[in-house]
Amino acid sequence: MASQVLVAANRGPLSYALAADGTLSARRGGGGLVSGLSAALAEQPDALWICAALSDADREAVRRGVSEPGVRMLPIDPEIYDGAYNGIANSVLWFLHHHLYEIPREPVFDAEFRRRWASYVTYNEAFAAALAEEAAEGAAVLIQDYHLALAPGMLRELRPDLRIGHFTHTPWASREFLLMLPEDIRSQLVWGMLGADRLGFHTGEWADNFITGAHLDDATGIAEPFWPRDGQSGVWHRKAPAGNGGKYGEKRFASVTPYPLGVDGDELRALAHRPEVDDKLAALRAEVGDLKTIVRVDRTELSKNILRGLLAYRELLITHPEWRERVVHLASAYPSRQDLTVYREYTESVRELAASINEEFGTDGWQPVLVSVEDDFARSLAAYRLADVALVNPVRDGMNLVAKEIPVVSEAGCVLVLSTGAGAYEELGADALTVNPYDVTATADALHAALSMPAAERADRTKRLAVAATALPPAQWLTSQLDALRAPAPPS
Amino acid sequence: MASQVLVAANRGPLSYALAADGTLSARRGGGGLVSGLSAALAEQPDALWICAALSDADREAVRRGVSEPGVRMLPIDPEIYDGAYNGIANSVLWFLHHHLYEIPREPVFDAEFRRRWASYVTYNEAFAAALAEEAAEGAAVLIQDYHLALAPGMLRELRPDLRIGHFTHTPWASREFLLMLPEDIRSQLVWGMLGADRLGFHTGEWADNFITGAHLDDATGIAEPFWPRDGQSGVWHRKAPAGNGGKYGEKRFASVTPYPLGVDGDELRALAHRPEVDDKLAALRAEVGDLKTIVRVDRTELSKNILRGLLAYRELLITHPEWRERVVHLASAYPSRQDLTVYREYTESVRELAASINEEFGTDGWQPVLVSVEDDFARSLAAYRLADVALVNPVRDGMNLVAKEIPVVSEAGCVLVLSTGAGAYEELGADALTVNPYDVTATADALHAALSMPAAERADRTKRLAVAATALPPAQWLTSQLDALRAPAPPS
Repeated sequence: MASQVLVAANRGPLSYALAADGTLSARRGGGGLVSGLSAALAEQPDALWICAALSDADREAVRRGVSEPGVRMLPIDPEIYDGAYNGIANSVLWFLHHHLYEIPREPVFDAEFRRRWASYVTYNEAFAAALAEEAAEGAAVLIQDYHLALAPGMLRELRPDLRIGHFTHTPWASREFLLMLPEDIRSQLVWGMLGADRLGFHTGEWADNFITGAHLDDATGIAEPFWPRDGQSGVWHRKAPAGNGGKYGEKRFASVTPYPLGVDGDELRALAHRPEVDDKLAALRAEVGDLKTIVRVDRTELSKNILRGLLAYRELLITHPEWRERVVHLASAYPSRQDLTVYREYTESVRELAASINEEFGTDGWQPVLVSVEDDFARSLAAYRLADVALVNPVRDGMNLVAKEIPVVSEAGCVLVLSTGAGAYEELGADALTVNPYDVTATADALHAALSMPAAERADRTKRLAVAATALPPAQWLTSQLDALRAPAPPS
Repeated sequence: MASQVLVAANRGPLSYALAADGTLSARRGGGGLVSGLSAALAEQPDALWICAALSDADREAVRRGVSEPGVRMLPIDPEIYDGAYNGIANSVLWFLHHHLYEIPREPVFDAEFRRRWASYVTYNEAFAAALAEEAAEGAAVLIQDYHLALAPGMLRELRPDLRIGHFTHTPWASREFLLMLPEDIRSQLVWGMLGADRLGFHTGEWADNFITGAHLDDATGIAEPFWPRDGQSGVWHRKAPAGNGGKYGEKRFASVTPYPLGVDGDELRALAHRPEVDDKLAALRAEVGDLKTIVRVDRTELSKNILRGLLAYRELLITHPEWRERVVHLASAYPSRQDLTVYREYTESVRELAASINEEFGTDGWQPVLVSVEDDFARSLAAYRLADVALVNPVRDGMNLVAKEIPVVSEAGCVLVLSTGAGAYEELGADALTVNPYDVTATADALHAALSMPAAERADRTKRLAVAATALPPAQWLTSQLDALRAPAPPS
């Protein structure tokens, strides 16, 4: 019953619902990554996906011994889960990797932080223990994301025989930000990650940030950056005496490699041409008439830079008044993490700024910005098909799949205005109009250039962008990591 | 009448006051740097200090042709001055060099920023023109600080014969932050600085940041980091064709060197023992009785980290309740830049947090925190003499002279709890208790260790700190830069 391939992630491929009569039913999750991974895993015999039970229904399923083949849910204590997931992963590591802190006030590493960190350790231990229990001798384990940064090291201690991979879906903090962490915490984070044989990131920049930031020489051991040689970058490391009964640990190598996740073109095109999407597209067309469209689709996430996007649109309407009444900005910005004050305030600022632009420039027949706050993927796909210009201007973003989805489903060709801070910039930069995300004037200029671009050039660029966006779809993304993990280790 | 030595700085050594009867009188400024520089300059024949007219009275003095020997005030247009000083120097460059931005919202480089930048250019041009006019052939020019980052390059164009030095009193932004600037602005900033023969910073870290951040290879030219060789670090650079009528400019070298400004021990001790200070000390002693004192003295500046300092004190009172009613925190935090919302809010947060600590822990006979909001140097000196522990925990600070002043005037020996983010850390770290400024728990632990330190060790450390703090007093700081500037250039 032991598995040869295991995936560990906070969120699993399915969740349970508890009906009024007490019966449980399983629902498969949608969305590109989960469905792509599920498909790829289905081809692996005895593959197992380990995830956290996220809801009361999930925990009830675990309690009753209900499960689906290929999935194991961990019934993490809700208080531990809250400390790990909200308290550390999303309030510390997310902010750190995305450089979102208001530094004069945050972060604050105090006694409360230490309590939450203890929960994060416990949460990671639960995953490491389950992986150790379920993995066959020499099995390959793919651990996902910043929620599980300590699990690789913990698993290495329990099961030195395993081939351990880890993939980070966010950016990796620059060394400047990583050094904000208390030294012992930073050390745990780096050593946790270095437990893996192979570390994956979306881009070369995030990979390089990890290698630079992993440079350690302290009581816990030595870790040294190793820059490209024979196509292999990574970190050489050996743990210090305390960790190994008086002797230096074995010298080990953790490779660090970009695997830029792409989209599945066929699947996405099929999704984008369902009747539901056709209907939404018809409704959008009726709404915008013959106006040009600038489309953005994001959660109202601090890193997405929606405010500066609106400011750029505003500056466009001032410096190029010829676009007034000829363009409309469709901004889909659905609320996210409204439990945090800073997100609530950000969402409110977006709403206010959009309203003030409409107030300032709107006319009887023309509303410059249409904000949609619904999380409606069908409507988003319709907007992708319609868009003349896509605005993807995050300050910092692990990859940003919207930038990859739009060119794939665009109908008439869509100009991509893309931030240098998006992970997708490394692959799409050549055919996008790229902007410094802090430079509102440059973004306004890029919007003007995008709106003015001849149709033929738009179509050509879109075609090339679609090719780049589909280069590594989820299933191949997974199998290429798996193949690399199973390949013989390079000589030390 | 041409000068052999010139200093250029936003603020001059004196200011004018306009009496009700219309008469103007000049007042010399106080404070360590200005008086130290004035003294050192007084020894140089024909030295000239060029500064901006800051007030209406200053501008009136210029209008009437009133001046003091050795000082020339530039009557910058008030609107230009506001754009340059408030709009760029203090709202952009200060935030950038200190890493103070709330990145999801700031910086915003829009059309208004461009207008302010134009003022900053004009302001720098006014200084460059005045320097070019006043300098003798081959004279040495010392340009001060981030207000005048473009002036070296402008002056180099006007007067290639001059020896040009520039000193930055703030930190220098890490490359991560420097890259936020629009590319053309960053290029102007870097080329402006590279107009100098010698660039000075307070620490090796800021100097290294400059060298790393100056790495350019674009339309404006090539600049390459040059790391220590023969004790010389800096940047090799040559300007691109556009700047030089079709040919590459001459290859030039700008050396980049730390000159860590210290305090004048004799002067400071004399100041600290004036009767006025003795009186303040007696009053403070009466106020605190036999309580131990933790002293901090800052402007309420975002970079000074006053909030986390208070949080650390709060955590100390929780984790070490034995200090309750045995210690008092004298926090001198006088308001600064209250024209900016973010500073007003920060000042209010400091006040609220101090009040809530007093509310939570105070007893009938004991108030845990005494906040003073007056900018009273005599009282600060009295607090320095009295202090058992000094808390200097900035997130990022060019030097921080408070950390250097306290050990010099301390009476019984004062333990310095010092942030790794302070420039003074490079010289004082060995004898201070050093803390990561974001780590409130570690800061609380350091406060406990400081309060618990045996008197003999406190006194020994203080003695060594005072020696380090006075190693390079202002006059020597100036003359050593002047000597280096006048020395023959190293061979290319």
